[in-house]
Formats: sequence, structure tokens, C-alpha cells
Amino acid sequence: MLYFENDYSEGAHEEVLKRLTETNMEQLPGYGTDRYTASAKEKICAACGCPDAEVYLLTGGTQTNQIVISSMLDSHEGVIAAETGHVGTHEAGAIEWTGHKVLTLPQTDGKISASDLEEYLSTFYGDENHEHMVFPGMVYISHPTEYGTLYTKGELAELSAVCSEYRIPLYLDGARLGYALAAADTDVTLQDVAEYCDVFYIGGTKVGALCGEAVVFPKENTPFHFVTKVKQRGALLAKGRLTGVQFDALFTDDLYLKIGKNAIDTANELKRALREKGYEFFIDSPTNQIFVVLEDAQMDRLKEYVVFSYWEKKDDTHTVVRFATSWATKMEDVKKLAALL
Amino acid sequence: MLYFENDYSEGAHEEVLKRLTETNMEQLPGYGTDRYTASAKEKICAACGCPDAEVYLLTGGTQTNQIVISSMLDSHEGVIAAETGHVGTHEAGAIEWTGHKVLTLPQTDGKISASDLEEYLSTFYGDENHEHMVFPGMVYISHPTEYGTLYTKGELAELSAVCSEYRIPLYLDGARLGYALAAADTDVTLQDVAEYCDVFYIGGTKVGALCGEAVVFPKENTPFHFVTKVKQRGALLAKGRLTGVQFDALFTDDLYLKIGKNAIDTANELKRALREKGYEFFIDSPTNQIFVVLEDAQMDRLKEYVVFSYWEKKDDTHTVVRFATSWATKMEDVKKLAALL
Amino acid sequence: MLYFENDYSEGAHEEVLKRLTETNMEQLPGYGTDRYTASAKEKICAACGCPDAEVYLLTGGTQTNQIVISSMLDSHEGVIAAETGHVGTHEAGAIEWTGHKVLTLPQTDGKISASDLEEYLSTFYGDENHEHMVFPGMVYISHPTEYGTLYTKGELAELSAVCSEYRIPLYLDGARLGYALAAADTDVTLQDVAEYCDVFYIGGTKVGALCGEAVVFPKENTPFHFVTKVKQRGALLAKGRLTGVQFDALFTDDLYLKIGKNAIDTANELKRALREKGYEFFIDSPTNQIFVVLEDAQMDRLKEYVVFSYWEKKDDTHTVVRFATSWATKMEDVKKLAALL
Amino acid sequence: MLYFENDYSEGAHEEVLKRLTETNMEQLPGYGTDRYTASAKEKICAACGCPDAEVYLLTGGTQTNQIVISSMLDSHEGVIAAETGHVGTHEAGAIEWTGHKVLTLPQTDGKISASDLEEYLSTFYGDENHEHMVFPGMVYISHPTEYGTLYTKGELAELSAVCSEYRIPLYLDGARLGYALAAADTDVTLQDVAEYCDVFYIGGTKVGALCGEAVVFPKENTPFHFVTKVKQRGALLAKGRLTGVQFDALFTDDLYLKIGKNAIDTANELKRALREKGYEFFIDSPTNQIFVVLEDAQMDRLKEYVVFSYWEKKDDTHTVVRFATSWATKMEDVKKLAALL
Repeated sequence: MLYFENDYSEGAHEEVLKRLTETNMEQLPGYGTDRYTASAKEKICAACGCPDAEVYLLTGGTQTNQIVISSMLDSHEGVIAAETGHVGTHEAGAIEWTGHKVLTLPQTDGKISASDLEEYLSTFYGDENHEHMVFPGMVYISHPTEYGTLYTKGELAELSAVCSEYRIPLYLDGARLGYALAAADTDVTLQDVAEYCDVFYIGGTKVGALCGEAVVFPKENTPFHFVTKVKQRGALLAKGRLTGVQFDALFTDDLYLKIGKNAIDTANELKRALREKGYEFFIDSPTNQIFVVLEDAQMDRLKEYVVFSYWEKKDDTHTVVRFATSWATKMEDVKKLAALL
Repeated sequence: MLYFENDYSEGAHEEVLKRLTETNMEQLPGYGTDRYTASAKEKICAACGCPDAEVYLLTGGTQTNQIVISSMLDSHEGVIAAETGHVGTHEAGAIEWTGHKVLTLPQTDGKISASDLEEYLSTFYGDENHEHMVFPGMVYISHPTEYGTLYTKGELAELSAVCSEYRIPLYLDGARLGYALAAADTDVTLQDVAEYCDVFYIGGTKVGALCGEAVVFPKENTPFHFVTKVKQRGALLAKGRLTGVQFDALFTDDLYLKIGKNAIDTANELKRALREKGYEFFIDSPTNQIFVVLEDAQMDRLKEYVVFSYWEKKDDTHTVVRFATSWATKMEDVKKLAALL
Repeated sequence: MLYFENDYSEGAHEEVLKRLTETNMEQLPGYGTDRYTASAKEKICAACGCPDAEVYLLTGGTQTNQIVISSMLDSHEGVIAAETGHVGTHEAGAIEWTGHKVLTLPQTDGKISASDLEEYLSTFYGDENHEHMVFPGMVYISHPTEYGTLYTKGELAELSAVCSEYRIPLYLDGARLGYALAAADTDVTLQDVAEYCDVFYIGGTKVGALCGEAVVFPKENTPFHFVTKVKQRGALLAKGRLTGVQFDALFTDDLYLKIGKNAIDTANELKRALREKGYEFFIDSPTNQIFVVLEDAQMDRLKEYVVFSYWEKKDDTHTVVRFATSWATKMEDVKKLAALL
Repeated sequence: MLYFENDYSEGAHEEVLKRLTETNMEQLPGYGTDRYTASAKEKICAACGCPDAEVYLLTGGTQTNQIVISSMLDSHEGVIAAETGHVGTHEAGAIEWTGHKVLTLPQTDGKISASDLEEYLSTFYGDENHEHMVFPGMVYISHPTEYGTLYTKGELAELSAVCSEYRIPLYLDGARLGYALAAADTDVTLQDVAEYCDVFYIGGTKVGALCGEAVVFPKENTPFHFVTKVKQRGALLAKGRLTGVQFDALFTDDLYLKIGKNAIDTANELKRALREKGYEFFIDSPTNQIFVVLEDAQMDRLKEYVVFSYWEKKDDTHTVVRFATSWATKMEDVKKLAALL
């Protein structure tokens, strides 16, 4: 069976696992005060070009979104997201659980635009009843988006400018950031992310780690007593080394960026094969998720050999499916898949 | 330097790490639907003597307490705990964060008594203003307690009887349950825990795992849509294999119980040495935490060679400190420590 | 100046005020245990044709929505509402504050349809990822809606049937219910509301009271310990007599229905005048809110003599405005307004 | 039957009711933007000696405590209160409902001391694990306390000084503030309260109003967008006039202080009679609540003629009961009660 179902099917990248194994019996202090966590934070700051950035390691994506958003918003505020944004659709109401509304903007290919954002904000403040409404207190984007698409540097700059104008933070969900940074045609670097965003996270779970996301506050803007807030929200690991060692490995010798590239290379090869065979793409995604239209009979046949994701019904006889590659995908598996198409 | 600071200083037990390594590149479905998680659950049910128990794997202790309590209480209810209970003191308000009060009972050596519980409940319902007060909706105990002490089977049965009478669940926090079960003089087995409690968790983080706690609902009493509630509270791991593989290893060939025994053996040896040298014990703890009174000058000298925990000031010249052993403690380190005493 | 801005510009209906005055110095027990509250509840049950209904008196509409929804939903559930529903737009996130998402359905004239609801629910349960999404746990409608429109008895029956099929309660926000019941062409009675809904409230604040909304659970389905939940949410009045006396007056000799009729009569007269003068209606609303298109210059002129509400911009030179009548509107004021049009 | 059960048995003071009646048919804007609310605020500022104070009118005491505390605390903070404090005992968990813990201090006659507070705070910050604990973010006191006792000006100054040192606000619950200010031997004026507290409320419900509490932020320290937060917590009245008119009346010609005096005068007369007849006082309360020990047989006999409150069991044959007077208590009723003693 070939697996193209998602980008979290395997365990950890071998370098990551190796470091966990090597350090396993070292006796280290708890709660993220160990030397590997410290080293990981330092390397992440360096990679972001922000020596003074503040970095915290958490376990998963929904947890990270929940903690970042709920600790940065005032109680009367909500977070603006694309109507397809992960926080508003597939996190089981994790944001609302903390008392905050997800306010939605229209999206194109999973992205929101600075002009729609500006219009939302100016309309809100122009409404004389806005005191009776949820205040927009933050903007959430993901990069890559739910559809694997990417913001350009210019788009990030524009969103950032609107946020600055209205004095609300711009938050970037980087669950798959490694794949965004490794994409061929992107002009957005990790340093750009750190420059234009007020907070973001570098995803580990989908990019080489067993678990772990690194939250970065690049502008000395960590919420007060953030560690206590993390504890209060149930997310402080006793063995902080678990995420510390992993991110230390991921940010040694640019491993994080290198393994992102494998996902892109294998995705590109798969796209090439699909294109060659005349398949219709549902969306032109430049990262590790490929959305393609299959004829239903063929889809059913393919299921016998390949695991992939159902995305949505296209018409009575066609379905949109998703193939995902990752840091772990083998080129030979792509070739086997191509042969089956 | 010798480490007796706590029971989460090392990584995972070697068998656990080995299984993580062996299964690392297997492609498995996410969110706890993999075969290792299924196997772990089955083995835990067997160990509990409850083939129909429902088991869920979470990441850490505070998270587990928060999720179990908040998903089992109705909104107008609080949880009763010893005034020294972990949920009321050292979890940064994680229970209140979910909207529920921690109601406190007096404690002796970290334990609550059935008679105090009965009195609390009868007084509550006897108060004609109780509609204006927080309803007691659950009882929380830990085993071992914060002081390393243990309930007897008779005490558990009595607490359970009072809970049944008032129709509220009894919840046992087993962060260090492995050390309770391995203690020399306990008459409480894992099957007893499953019989007398309505919900409990088997701690992994402090007993051989990198992270992970196994919540057990022994009586087909899992809250509705518990997985969604776990997700909503930010605690559902994409790579559920991380906890699944670990608990599968811990419950293979009774590993969990065996490694608990090492903590007890090393603790007993240390207690023997302390007793022999005439040290005063702060409390008679039968598990892996030893609370002892040190003369301050000696404490300072010892700090140069040993890491241990400050517990509390005893008087102007004496301090209570804690030495903790674990699954990973080496007998030779105990002997080195004994030599320093 | 003429006031057509809203339906809460005056204090209480004279009969209501009279009863408050007459009973003012009586010494009564607190928290809604007084005889006037008991009498009010009994009269409301009778009016609903539900002798066994359970009735609770609260202070305001947002408070009522917040308490009803948060005490009926399980934590992983959200409430479905029209995208224009009050709970999702103009209550400052009061529902999310309690941890629950407002899930939206498309609307027509402020109403949702049984077929859209059925499709939403079947799509939700058909989505294999629905465990990662907010469960639809309740349906919220308002009657009249935000646009003053009304459901027919058939539409209520259909919505109720879908809710029953999916075992979720149907909740009707009756902030202006008195005006719905008094409308000319409605076939929905208070008894119908009690039959088709699982919970609803009869609005007092906008229909003759100083403050107060009566929540009705017609099917012995009051959430456990509802009074404690009301207290916990900050909404239990010490002087429960305040709402008790008012609702007792409103439900004596059908006062509630009679004063609703005045709002309809004055609204109809105003509509007649507007129609006669050729004004364009934005929506055909059968209750006490009239939405009409004004030429901007005329609107500005009118503002010098009349207070009304801005609704939305229609085009560069036209605006939609709202005139509201109420139990207190004088026919002579309508005539004065008509003369100004 | 004579009523001495509590201080909210009657409706509104006649002046308050008169103003509600006189203004009843005036057409006023909603949500507290009317001229009576503005006038009330101005008069309250003047009475507090704080022309720049910010005043908000809410409906009840628990609601007010919930809103003030939850909008002033950061999410990782709790509120310190006496172990007998209303917020921790008789508000059904209203504070925890908003996510915050009530941290308790020992009390004497319902009061906390500056030295206990200082010790709590210094111990907290001295504990090296305090990051894992709930941060003390505010101090709550009531004046009068639950036992009707009063802080002295010196005690308030000391508490205020400790709060300033630790940069946390001091909040005074003035549900019965009118009775505190009217007490014979107090040296605390309303201006003192405004000077030493960072926020407090002036209770109306128990001192002459049908409902209503006036929150005062004397130091330009209102939480951002407080009105929206009030709305979000379900507490913004559409007819803000209801509380506005009442507080405008209560602060016209010092009515609030005058009617407080009646409660004190009648309480003093009752105390005199009790003392004369040799009754044992449970506590020496200088305001409108009298706690006295009754022999059980006598208590039962008295119940046939008088309504009073059970407080607690003293011993097998004696009970502590409470008699409460109020603005509405008639001296002749006190005399009738005295004759029965």
C-alpha cells in the first residue's frame, strides 16, 4: 500500500529520533528549563534573524492556536480568519472554548486579502452599533493555507500594514511552514515571517517531529506570564526536553529547511506525472498538498493500492482528492503511484 | 552530581524508546486510530480486569485533570479535593480556567477521609441556601498523594460508597500510580482502582514514558463525544502513535509494574540509610518520594553533590527536603548518596 | 420630536407600573420565590396551554440567550442560527464567552429553512472528519426575526421535525413575541410556539415591561439546577418580585397580547401611509418594524423632526432606514409622521 | 408577621419609585445613554469627591462582582478574598465560571488584614514554583462584610498600601455600602472608599432600589471597552433608564445616606432591646445585621410571629440567628419585635 494520506503518517525524522535517543538518559530539569530547549530557542532566534525573539515550545497545532489566541486577545475581542481557516472549521471550537469568536473573511485559494481586511475593519468601526459586536482583536492566517497555497512577501507586508494601522497583531499559523519555506517560487523567508508577523509558530508535528510547535514572539511582545498561561491551559510538558531536543535537532544545520525540500521535490514529481497524464487540478498548490480531480471509478480502483484523502465531491461522477507528501515521502513511492495513475 | 530532584529527569525507559524507534517509519493513521494505540488500550483493559473499559491517551497530568474534570462536571458543579490536592494548588488554575471551582476538604498526610467527605456532602445539602453555592459534582483524589502516601483498599471502598450514595463520580489521579502499585505494603491493585473509581488515569510521564497519561473509564461512562472534547481542549495529538506505542510497551509483559518496583526498591534503600543515620522523617511515605528533615548547614553542603527538592522550612535551623527516586534511579547512586549523608 | 427609533424608548406599560407601585411595600421573599412570580408563572403556563411548563424570569434578551444556550449545550456543541441571527451578530460574543460557537445557516428575510437545516445536519454527520468539528447541538430562531418577519406554523413544524430527527432542541427567541402573536396574518399562536419549540422566551423588555424575559421549558426539560446556573451566570435578581410582578401584570387579562396589537395597528397605519406615498419597502415585514428606502436628502430633512434607525446604505443616494412602533406608540404620532413624509 | 429576614424584602424607596413613575413615558435612548443615567453618574462622582471617576450601572451584586473581577484580571490571575467572602461562598461559582480562582485569606469577623495579605503575597512570590500557581491579581473585600462589620479608615489605607506595593487593584464590594456609611462609629466616608480602592460598587438593591449597583472606577482605570464586556456578559440593560433613574434619585439630596441611617437607627434600637434582655451576641456588628444567640425553644416560638434568618447551630440547644433591618424597617416593628423577645 502506498501512503499519500497526509504529512503526519510517520514518526520523527531519523536525526530527530537519534538526538532523542542519545540524550535519553541525561538527567535534565523539567518544564522547558533544560539546555536542549535553550539551545533550540537560540537556534530558532538565529534562523529568524531575531536574536531577541521569545520562543516557546508547545505540543500540537490546535493547542498552539488556542493558547496564542486566547492569551493575546482581550475578553471582548475575537480573531479574524479566512472562512476556511483551520481555527474556524477543524479545531472543534477550540477558540470559542476559550471565550472568543472567530470572525470570518472571504477567501481565495485559502488566503485573505489586505483589502478585504481593511474593509472589514473600517466597516466595523464605522458601524455605530459596534460596541454591541465582537471587536476584531487579531488576524489569523496560515502559511501554507488549508489549500497549500502561499502568501507572497508583498501580501504579507500589506496585511501587516493593515494590522499595524488598527493596532492588532498578525498571527501566522505555520503548521506546515517548513514546506512553505522550501517551495520553489516563494519569496517569503523565515526572516520575512518574523518581520511581518507579531507572532507565529513553526510547525514540527508535520515537518519531522514526533510532536511539537515552536511559537515565536519576535517583538518582545510575549503575553505576561506566558508559561503560567500555558500551564493553566494544560499544555506545559513536565519533560520539556521532548520538544526541546527535537527542535534543537530540527534547527541544527538547517535540517528543518532541508527536509521541507523533500516534500516539495516529491510533490513536484507527482504533479508532473499528473499533469502529463492530463489530470485536472482542483487548485494550483505550490507546496506538499496536491488537490486533483479523479473520475469516481478510477478513484475506487486507486484506493486498492493507495491511501489518499477525500476532499469534496466535484460532480456526479468526479471527486476532488488530496495527495500529500512530506519530509518522509520516498521518490520511489511517487514513481509507483505515477505508474498507477 | 547525583539527581534525586524528581521522577521526570530522564527520557523514556529503554523498552519504550526501543519501540518508538522500531515503529518510527511505519505509516500509521492519525489521532489515536493506529494499531499501537488500539493494542495499548486492550492491554490496559486487561490489566485493569475490565475488558469493556474505555481508554484514552493524553499527554500530561494537568491536561488530563483538566479534561476529565471539565468534561464530567455539569456547569454548576465543582470538584472536591484535599486542600493539598494538585488540582487546587499546583496546576495554575487549570480547573477554574474551565469554569469549575475546586472545593476543598481537610487532609491528613495528603489524604481525605470518607467521613469528612460524607460530612461535607450532608452539610451542603442540609444548607437551605445551597442553591446559591457550587454543587459538589465529583471527588478528586491522588494515589499516591502529593505526599507519596497511599489509600488502603478499605479507604477507597469507603470513599467510593459515599460517592455512590451522592451519585457523584470518584476520580483518581494516578500520575505516579506505578509507584503506588509497586509499594510493599499496599493492598490496592490496579483492578481495585478500576472497581472503586469511576474514572482514573495511569501516569506515564513519571513512570517510564516521554509523555503520556492513560485515562480509563471503567464503567462505560465516557462523556459523550470525548474525542471531540479532547480536540476542543487542544489535547488531541495528530501523531497519536506517540502515546500509543509508549503505552503499548509499558503494558507489555507488565513493564509498567516492573519499573515501578525499581523506584520503590531504591527509595527503600535510601530510607534505610536515612533511618540508620538517625534522620527525622517529615512523613512516612511508602512510595518513591522521601520527605526528610535536614539541618540547614548540612543541607547546603549536600547541595554541592546532590540535586533534591526544597519542600518547606521546618524551623530556624532545619528544612524539610524531598528526595525522589524513579524507574530510572540506579542503586549505585543511592549508595553514593547514602555515603554523603 | 417624534420617536420611532425602537421599541424600548418608554418605561413600563401603565398597568405594569401600577402593579409595581401597589405591591411596592409588601414584604416578599427573594430570588423569585414570591407569590407574584408564582402567579406570573401560572398565568404563563395557562397562556401557553402547558400546565406543566417550567417558567423562569430573567432580565434581558442577551442574558437570556446566553443562559439558555450555555445551560442546554454540551461543551462540544454549538448553536445553529441564521447568519443574521442576533446571537451571532449583536450580542458582543455572549455565546462564545460561554465556550460555544454560533454555527450559521443562510437566511431569507431573516429566516432559516428546514431544508437548509436538514442539509447542514446531514452534511455534518456525513463528513468523516466531523469529530474535529463543532457539533450542532441546538437550533436558534427568532420570531419575529431581526427583520420583523414571521415563521408560519408549517415552517415551525418543519424545523421542529428536523430537530426531533437529530435530537437537538429548537429554541425560539421571542424578544418581540408579543408583536408576532398580534400580527394580522400569522397562524402561529403562543400554544403553537410551546408545542413546536423545546424552549423559548416571551420578551418583556420590548413589550411593556421595564425589564424582563420569561423563559419557558414546555416539556419538563429544564436543565438540572437551572436556578443555580442562573445565579452562577450573574443573573439571579435578589428582588425577583421586579420581574414577577411585571409578568403577572402582563399576563393578567391578556394584557401582553392586547398591547402587542397597538404596535401592529400603528405599524400598519404607517405602512399604509408609506405605501400611499410610493415609498419602496426594503422588506415586507408584518410586525412592528418597518424597513423603507429613503432618498438621502429627504432622510436628512426628516431627521430634524423624527428619530429613526439607520439600517444600511442602499446606493449612492438612498438609504434603508427602520421605523419601529411599540405598545406605547400613539396613533397621533404616526399621523404626524405620515404628514412629514 | 414581622419581617427581619433580610434587607431586600420591600420594593423601592418611595422617592425612587416616584421618579420611575414620573419619567415612565419619557422617550429615552437605550443602553445607559439616557440623561438620567448621565445625571446619576455625575452625582455619584460628586458624592465620591472624584469628578473624573467613571461610573457604570449594573443590575445585581453577583453580576457586578463577576463583571468587575473578570474584566480586570488577566487570565492567569485569581482574586484574593476572605474565606467567608461572598464571591467564594454564596455566588454559585460565578467567579470560577469566568475562569478565575478565588484565593482565600483567613478572616476575623469577616475582615482580612493587611499583614495576612502581605504575607500571602510575599510567600507567593517567594515560592520558586509560583509560576505553576494562580497569580494573585486583585484583592476583594466587602464593606460591610458578610458579618456586617466595618473596616476602619486605617485598615483600608493599609490594605491599599499592600495592593499598591504589589500593583494589584483593591476592590470593595459595597452591596450594603449605604449602611456602612451611615454607621455610628465609622471613620470611613464615601470619599475615603474612592481614595483607597481602585474599584468599588455602591449597592442599590439592598439600599432603596428595585435593582441596581453602581460600579465606580475612581482612577481612570476602567477596563478597555467595558460596555462591550458588560454586554458580552449578558448584563447590559436595553432600558438603562431603569437603573439610571433610580441612582439619580438615590443620589439626589443625599437620599442614599439618609435611608441608610434608618437601617442603623432601627438596628441600634433592636440591639439595645436585645442587650437589655440579656441576649448573647454572636458578633458585635455595627451595621444593619444583628447576629444573636437564641435558645432553640424560644427560636421556635418566635418563628410564629417573626421572619428572621437561620445563621448556624451554636450548640445542642442554641442557634445563631440574624435579624436584618433596612431603609424600609419601621421603628414600630422593632418595638413589636422587642416586646416578643
